[in-house]
Order: sequence, then C-alpha cells, then structure tokens
Amino acid sequence: MDIYTIPVRYQDSFSNLDEFKLISKIIDQLGSSAAKDIIVPPGDDAAVWMNSKNSLTVATVDTLTEGTHWRADTMSFYDVGWRAITASVSDLAAMGATPNYLLIAITLDTSTTEQNINMLTEGIAKSSTVHKVKIAGGDITRAHTNIISVTAIGQITQNNPQSNYYPIMRRNTAEVGEFVAVSGYPGTSGAGLNILEANIQGTLDAELITLHRQPIARIELGVSAAKAGIKCAIDLSDGLVQDLEHIAKASNIGIKIDTRKIPLHSTAYNLLGEQKTLDLALGQGGEDFELILTGSEQHLRSLHTIELPVTIIGKTTLKHPGQVKVYKGTDEEYDPPQRGWNHLRND
Amino acid sequence: MDIYTIPVRYQDSFSNLDEFKLISKIIDQLGSSAAKDIIVPPGDDAAVWMNSKNSLTVATVDTLTEGTHWRADTMSFYDVGWRAITASVSDLAAMGATPNYLLIAITLDTSTTEQNINMLTEGIAKSSTVHKVKIAGGDITRAHTNIISVTAIGQITQNNPQSNYYPIMRRNTAEVGEFVAVSGYPGTSGAGLNILEANIQGTLDAELITLHRQPIARIELGVSAAKAGIKCAIDLSDGLVQDLEHIAKASNIGIKIDTRKIPLHSTAYNLLGEQKTLDLALGQGGEDFELILTGSEQHLRSLHTIELPVTIIGKTTLKHPGQVKVYKGTDEEYDPPQRGWNHLRND
Repeated sequence: MDIYTIPVRYQDSFSNLDEFKLISKIIDQLGSSAAKDIIVPPGDDAAVWMNSKNSLTVATVDTLTEGTHWRADTMSFYDVGWRAITASVSDLAAMGATPNYLLIAITLDTSTTEQNINMLTEGIAKSSTVHKVKIAGGDITRAHTNIISVTAIGQITQNNPQSNYYPIMRRNTAEVGEFVAVSGYPGTSGAGLNILEANIQGTLDAELITLHRQPIARIELGVSAAKAGIKCAIDLSDGLVQDLEHIAKASNIGIKIDTRKIPLHSTAYNLLGEQKTLDLALGQGGEDFELILTGSEQHLRSLHTIELPVTIIGKTTLKHPGQVKVYKGTDEEYDPPQRGWNHLRND
Repeated sequence: MDIYTIPVRYQDSFSNLDEFKLISKIIDQLGSSAAKDIIVPPGDDAAVWMNSKNSLTVATVDTLTEGTHWRADTMSFYDVGWRAITASVSDLAAMGATPNYLLIAITLDTSTTEQNINMLTEGIAKSSTVHKVKIAGGDITRAHTNIISVTAIGQITQNNPQSNYYPIMRRNTAEVGEFVAVSGYPGTSGAGLNILEANIQGTLDAELITLHRQPIARIELGVSAAKAGIKCAIDLSDGLVQDLEHIAKASNIGIKIDTRKIPLHSTAYNLLGEQKTLDLALGQGGEDFELILTGSEQHLRSLHTIELPVTIIGKTTLKHPGQVKVYKGTDEEYDPPQRGWNHLRND
C-alpha cells in the first residue's frame, strides 16, 4: 500500500482536494513521463538519480504565470503545460545540454477546475515525451493565480572520455569576426498569436497556432552545434534583437544583422505581410525557442538541414560593443518598433 | 563588460524595473551565496557544475506562497526568503543528502516594494550561508501575488568508495518493531506563531518567534543518521501525526506514539501550557523542519546530543497499517484536535 494509490473523488475545483491525493493523481496522469526507474521516484521528499560518469550536470528553472506568459483566451491549460516544459528544456538546449529530469512546481488558483488541471498535466506529459525528459518530482500549492515553474536538469557529456573537454555553449563566448545564425523561422510564435487575436480562421493558420501553443525546443541542434565546435548560443525567447543583445553584452562584441536574410515563415508572410512578420521576429513576438548561434560560416552551414534550417543573418563586429544594429540590406539602418519582450514591464 | 554589471536605478516598486537588471541586482545582493566558482555561474541560460564521482544527485522543489505559507503580518520578506531555503534543503536532509546548489524561481506582485525585494534576497542569502548551499540560478516573473519556489540539488556519497551502497533514507522503509524518534522540540514554530498572533511581548518569546521565522533544517543530523544506518526518515513540515502517517502509509506499517514522551520546548510550555504546546506539535503547528526517524533504539540514541536532542516518542507496529495512534501514556488514546496541515485546503 502506498499513499499514491488512494482513490480520489474528483471535484469541480481543486480547493477541497487533498494535496497528497492531487499529487498522486498527477503522478498517475503523467504516465511514462514520470521518472519511475530512478533510485527514488516521485513521491518522497526528493528525487534521487545516479550521476552519469564523464558528464556535467546542467540545471535551469523557468516560470510561466497566467496573465504575463499566457492568456486564458489564447492558450489552453494543455498548451501552458506543453510550453512550460519547452521553455525550460530550451535553456538547456542553448547550452548544448541534453535535458534528463524535471521538477515541476505548480501554483493553482483555487477556482481552477479539475478539467483544467487534467489538461495541464496532459500538456506536461506530452511535451515531456516529445522532448524525451522525465518528471522526477514537484510541488503543488495554491494562490490567487496559476503559475508553473519547471526546473530542468540535464547533462553535457565529453566528446571523448579521455579528454577533459566538455562541449558547452555560452552567451559570453562570441568573438569578433564570427557569423550569426538562427534556426527555423523566428517570429512564428508571435504570428500564431497575432492570427489568434485577429481571429483569422482557416486551414493555413492552424500550423502557426500550433507552433505558438506547442513550441518545440531545439535539443538535438544544441547538442550537435556544441559537439561541432560552436561556442556561443542562446535560445530565442525574448525576440531576435533582445536575445542578440544578451550575447553582445555578455561577450562584449557588436552584432549587425540584415533583415533581408532573416528567414520568415511562408504562411506568416502570406497572412500578415513581410513587414509585420519581420517585426514579430525582431522583437514584437517571442518564445520561438529557436537557437541563435555564432561561429564560423563552415560550422554554421554544417548544421543546416531541410527539416530545420540554420540561416546566417549577420556578423559579429568590433564596433559598438554590447549593441545590436539592424540593417535593411547592407546600408539602411532599421529601428524595429519593438526590440524584445521584458516579462517584468507593465504593458 | 557583462550584462550583470549595468547600474540599476532603484524604483519604489519593481514593476518598471528591467527584468535583467533586477536579476543582476539580486545576483549582486546574493554575495557569496551565489555560486560563482562553478563551470557556468548564474547569468547564463542554465547553471553548470561538475558531478562528483561516487555520489547520487538528489533534487527537490518547494514553493511558498503569500497567504498560504506565510502572512505579511507575521513574517517579513527576510523571513520568507530564509524559510523558503530551509524548507527545500530540509527535504534533502530527510533523505540523508547534503544540499549543494539552489535554483530559485521568484514571482512578485507588481506592488512589492524595492525594500521588500531586498529583504527577501537578504533572507535567501543568509539562510543559504547558514545551510552551506550556493545559488546556481533562478528566474523572476510577475503576477498578482508573491511566490518563491526553491529547487535544491544535492548529493549522497557512498560510505565507502569501494562499495556500491548509498546511505539514503526514505519514507517507505520503516519496519515493524522499530522505534520512532524526533529531533528537537516539535511544535516550536507553531508556538512562535501563536505568540505572534496573541501579541505576547517579552524577552522569553523572542527565541520562539525567531524559530518560527528563521527555522534551521537538520542537514548534519540527516547525513549522520543515514551513515549510522537509519533507513527511514521524513522532515517535520505538516505536524507530527500527518508526517508520521506519510511514513505509515508508504511503509505499510502502524505507528503508535506516546504524548508524554514528546519533547516540548520549555518556553512554549511555560507561555502556552502543556496541552496547547502538545497540540501544536501533533498537528496544529507545522514547519518545524525537525526530522522524524525510525530505527533501532541503539541507532536512534547514538544520534542524540545536548545541542539537538533526538527523542524516542513511539514504536512501529504490525497493527493498523497506514495509521498513527496517539496515546497519553500507554493506554488512553488521544485524538488531537488537528492532525496536520494541508496547504491545498481552504481554512
């Protein structure tokens, strides 16, 4: 007999539900995404797993809050659970790490329905499966809002067990004279949200809306890039300009990009026009979870595939350290209407 | 130049403060409790540290929310920061693990003042120093309430590098015929809160109020107990009866305890009386962060010190598996007015 097998009488809202029964129910619902084969699986004071040899542990935490990171009218609880996992594992992808385990802290408004908690859990489970991570533990509390905070713990393995070199990508390792590339189609998530807000209905937009609601982190690209010798990366979560600025400031180099080289999603381009899609990519959108990488042209081009294009959009420079300049073509400087998203600002 | 050295112009509330500047400021404030000597310190997408050889990684997350886990009239933000660290590392202590690194997810109400954010950070830093853990990363978001979620990651080392045995304590490993012990004085934190609420002023109560506001997790006891051969433990966070029930259910054994053996804090006893102090220990209080341990009389007695008493309060039994019976002396059964605290219930 285990405390996690007590039958639960479901309520419409969770406020009268026992904390431990709710945790049990959620562990059950997680199915194969709960880490059951570790030394101490979910349900005890803490999760325990064996360290792999010849590897670094890499860990991050990322929080999504209702009203700031998602709106109930454009994201279901399934989507929120999905994206919370993506956002955390994307941070590991940006280091070249493979995520292994998650700890999930959920804070629920007491009026949140049973159905929504189920959907949240399903989204968590599905995104965890897609990203090949296991949930090793968590915590559930209540407050006057819905919040999900995901800790992702993963590893970076040596290229060669005999060497002491670990292929880590960081944001402070860009060098002057490198090329700057981005994976996929920046602005896609923002385009999906715009289409939702404008209530543009159609078969074409379904893909964009899915990419907004259920984004995928670029874990394999991150690992490949680090192993290929790329030293500097960041994930695209706040918009191209702002995320590039993080690299420019941390590395003390300048970055210039050419708007005409930024790959735009063809459906977004067709529905919203070039200018709007571009502005979404530069900073009006966010949470694309693509990777920005700097390195040699050869290294960057070796990462390009038809399934996930890696496109060179600019260069690092000695000039204007800490700053990002956007050009239309090579000469006309462009000042985008929004350079990125800051979750702490009032909008 | 690094993005974390940008000067910050302080505001009365943080709503107009730049997220990255706020993170920078908080990292600065953390001082020596920020993990600066790891491979990738706070400020990148994720923290990176080397795994120790011959050790297990142990990780947990614990969330405190305003209104549920603390009240603004009895806890300062300093106390909240302090207790959030204690609560997470206490979960590792209960496994016999040594906490090493923390990831801290903070959600702030936009009306939270600069001063309160500073106090929160100071409490986090001080408690981290006391518990000998380093902060390796975090995330800050805003919402309509204040929430702090702490992930603690630590390790369990083999007793002997040649063996494959790791001294882990769990809640599902209690056996029939063992003794049940508790460290320190259960109910102390609840007594501190009662004294605060009753506004009992005096020099005697200051210690109890501090124990309520700035509790200490029993990390050294946890490690010693596990190394001494204790197999089963839990931290005392919900009240004696409920936490013992977790052991009883997970281990499928019964537990009986004797109220007359429960060690009560003398100041609490003098100020609140025996009955009230006992009821606080049994379940009206909570968050003492002492350890409950089961094992042989010899093992348990070996852990006792004058600084931190470890007191036998009961036994495990074949009868009533999954249940906890409370006796006054050996015969009269006692039904405490409250058996524990459930954070998801409406009160």
